[in-house]
Amino acid sequence: MIGMRTVRRMVSLLSRTSQIRNGSRIPKSSPPLVSLDLPDEWSSNFIQSDSPPPKCSDNATARIIDGISEAEQIRSSIAVEVSRMKESTGKVPGLAVVLVGQRQDSLAYVRKKIMACHEVGFRFSLSELPESCTEEEVCDALSNYNKDASIHGILVQLPLPQHFDEGKILNVLSLEKDVDGFHPLNIGNLAIQGREPLFIPCTPKGCIQLLLRSDVEIVGKRAVVIGRSNIVGLPTFLLLQRHHATVSIVHAYSENPEMITREADILVAAAGVPNLVRGSWLKPGAVVLDVGINPIEDPESENGYRLIGDVCFEEAVKIASAITPVPGGVGPMTVAMLLQNTLEAAKRALHFT
Amino acid sequence: MIGMRTVRRMVSLLSRTSQIRNGSRIPKSSPPLVSLDLPDEWSSNFIQSDSPPPKCSDNATARIIDGISEAEQIRSSIAVEVSRMKESTGKVPGLAVVLVGQRQDSLAYVRKKIMACHEVGFRFSLSELPESCTEEEVCDALSNYNKDASIHGILVQLPLPQHFDEGKILNVLSLEKDVDGFHPLNIGNLAIQGREPLFIPCTPKGCIQLLLRSDVEIVGKRAVVIGRSNIVGLPTFLLLQRHHATVSIVHAYSENPEMITREADILVAAAGVPNLVRGSWLKPGAVVLDVGINPIEDPESENGYRLIGDVCFEEAVKIASAITPVPGGVGPMTVAMLLQNTLEAAKRALHFT
Repeated sequence: MIGMRTVRRMVSLLSRTSQIRNGSRIPKSSPPLVSLDLPDEWSSNFIQSDSPPPKCSDNATARIIDGISEAEQIRSSIAVEVSRMKESTGKVPGLAVVLVGQRQDSLAYVRKKIMACHEVGFRFSLSELPESCTEEEVCDALSNYNKDASIHGILVQLPLPQHFDEGKILNVLSLEKDVDGFHPLNIGNLAIQGREPLFIPCTPKGCIQLLLRSDVEIVGKRAVVIGRSNIVGLPTFLLLQRHHATVSIVHAYSENPEMITREADILVAAAGVPNLVRGSWLKPGAVVLDVGINPIEDPESENGYRLIGDVCFEEAVKIASAITPVPGGVGPMTVAMLLQNTLEAAKRALHFT
Repeated sequence: MIGMRTVRRMVSLLSRTSQIRNGSRIPKSSPPLVSLDLPDEWSSNFIQSDSPPPKCSDNATARIIDGISEAEQIRSSIAVEVSRMKESTGKVPGLAVVLVGQRQDSLAYVRKKIMACHEVGFRFSLSELPESCTEEEVCDALSNYNKDASIHGILVQLPLPQHFDEGKILNVLSLEKDVDGFHPLNIGNLAIQGREPLFIPCTPKGCIQLLLRSDVEIVGKRAVVIGRSNIVGLPTFLLLQRHHATVSIVHAYSENPEMITREADILVAAAGVPNLVRGSWLKPGAVVLDVGINPIEDPESENGYRLIGDVCFEEAVKIASAITPVPGGVGPMTVAMLLQNTLEAAKRALHFT
C-alpha cells in the first residue's frame, strides 16, 4: 500500500524526470541536482512489516552496546587532556553554540552540550537568537566567534527555522572551527580517498567508535545505512566506506528496503521514523546502531512522552548479536565526539600535542 | 582462493585496526582516515567465477547503448551553442590541459580531447611537462591558466607520476575552472542534498546521461557501482544517490562481490579489471554501464592490443537488458561531458545564457 502523499511525490518527480528526458536531446547541462532533491518522508508502507519474523531461539539476546559507559570513558580521558593543556598553556578548549528559536528538542540538546563542556573543563559560550532574527544576525554571531581566540569550536544548532538558508549560514563558519564537520569541504575530504577532513561529523564518528570499541569487524562487511541526511546518513556512509565496509544507503524511495536491510552485517538506522526497523528486517547476528531519537506519547512517563529509536528494540534484541539502546546508545557518543572534535580544534590552534 | 598479496594486505590492515582498538581506551582522536587507505588491487579470486550462468534464452540479446551516437548528438549541439556564443560575445570556450610525462594512454586521451575541442570550435591549450619536472612547475602552469581569461576550463591529465602530490596540485586549480569536478569542495557539494557542485565529474555525468537518454528508470532502483576511485566510482555513487537510486559500492575488499552485484538493476563497472564481471554476476534484465578501458594483447590487431571493458561482454549481452560496449560506450560520453562542463564554465564566466 502506498500512501497518497507518496504517489503525489512520485508523480511530481516523474514529471520532472521526464522533463529531463524530453530535454535530453538538446545540449543543455544536466538538471541542477537541487531540482531533484526530495523530502525523505517515509510512507506508511515502510512502517508495517508483513514478513514473518526470522527464526531465532526464544532466548537469543543481543549484547547491549552501552553508549553511556563508552562515552563516559572518553569524556573522562578528555578531562585529563584538558588539565594537561591548562597546565601547559594556561588555556582550555572553548565551544560556542548559536541557537535560533526555542525548539524543545534543540534546547534539550544544547543543555546536554553545556553540561558536557562543564564536566570536562571546556569554556562554553551560547548565543541565543529569537526565531524572528535575520540571517545577518546569525552570520554576525558566527563571525564574532570566528574571531574569538578563546573559542575553538563553533556549531549552529540544527535545524534552523525553515526560512533560513542553512547552506549560506554554514558557509560563514570558519573551517578550522567547524567541529560539526558539515562544511562541504569537510564532507568532500571525508569522501575522497587520500584526503583528510579537519573534522568528522559527530554522530557518524560516534557510530564508528562504538563499532571499533565493541570489536566489530568492519572491513569487507555489508553495511546498510537507513536514511541519507546530510548530518548522519550520508557522512556515515562515507565513513564506513573509508573503513572498507561494502555500504548501501536505503532511503524513503528505496524499493524493498526490508530485503536490502536484511543483508546487513552492520546496520545504522537513521531515518527518524519510530520503530521503522522490525525484527524481520534484520539478518540474524547483525550489529545494530540505532541513531533515531523519536519522542512518542507515554502517559505513564513524567513528561508525558518517552524516547524510542528507529529500531523496534524488543524484536531486534532477539535477532541481532549486538544493539545500541535508545536512549543510552549513540546519543551520548555524539556529545562525546563533539568534545573530542573541539579538543582537536583547540590542540591545532594552540599547537599543543 | 586468496592470493598472498591480499593476505599480506589484510594482515597489515588488521594490525592497524587492532592498534586502533588497543588505543581506543585513551581519548586520542580517530585514526587519520588516510592511514586506513588501501590500494584497491583486485585479487585473482574475484576474477574467476564458479557460479553457473543464470538461466536465459539463448537468443536473449541486450540492447546496445550507443555512446558514440549519443555523444555525437551532444557534441553537435555544443557546436551550435559555441557559434551562438561567438556571434554574441566574440568569444569561444577555452580548455587547457596540463600533461606531465609521456604515458601512452594519457597521450591518447589528450589527443581525443584536442580533436573534440577543434570539432566544436573550442580554443585548446596544452602545457606539456617532462616527467622530471617539479611540483612547482606544474602549479605554475595551472596558475597561468587560472589567470588566462581565454581559458574557462582546466584539467590535469591524471594519473600524475607517482612522486607528485596530486591533492596539493589539484588544490591550485581555480574552482571556477575545475571542469573535471575533482576539487573536494565540488565533491562535497555533489554529496550534500541541497547543494550544487559547480561541475559534475565527466564520467559519472556521462553515465547518468546515458541512463536518462536510454529511458532507464533510476528512482528507487538498486544500483551497484564496482570500484570506488575518486574520479569515477565514488562520484558515480554520489550522483546515482542524488537521483534516488539505492546504491551500493563494491570494492576490492568486499565479501561476496558477485552476490551483491547480482542484486543490481543498474550496474556501473569501474574497477579497471578486464572481464571482472561475468554473466553470472548479473541479474537478468540489468542495465550495464561498462566504464573499464583495459588494453589486452591481441596479435591480430594492428597495434598488437585491443581494448576490453570490466564486463565480459559476450556473456553479459545474453543476460542484461541493455549494455554499453567497450570501446564506444561510456568513453565518448566522458569527452562530451568535458566539453559540456567547459561550455558551462565559459557561459558562467561570460555571463552568457
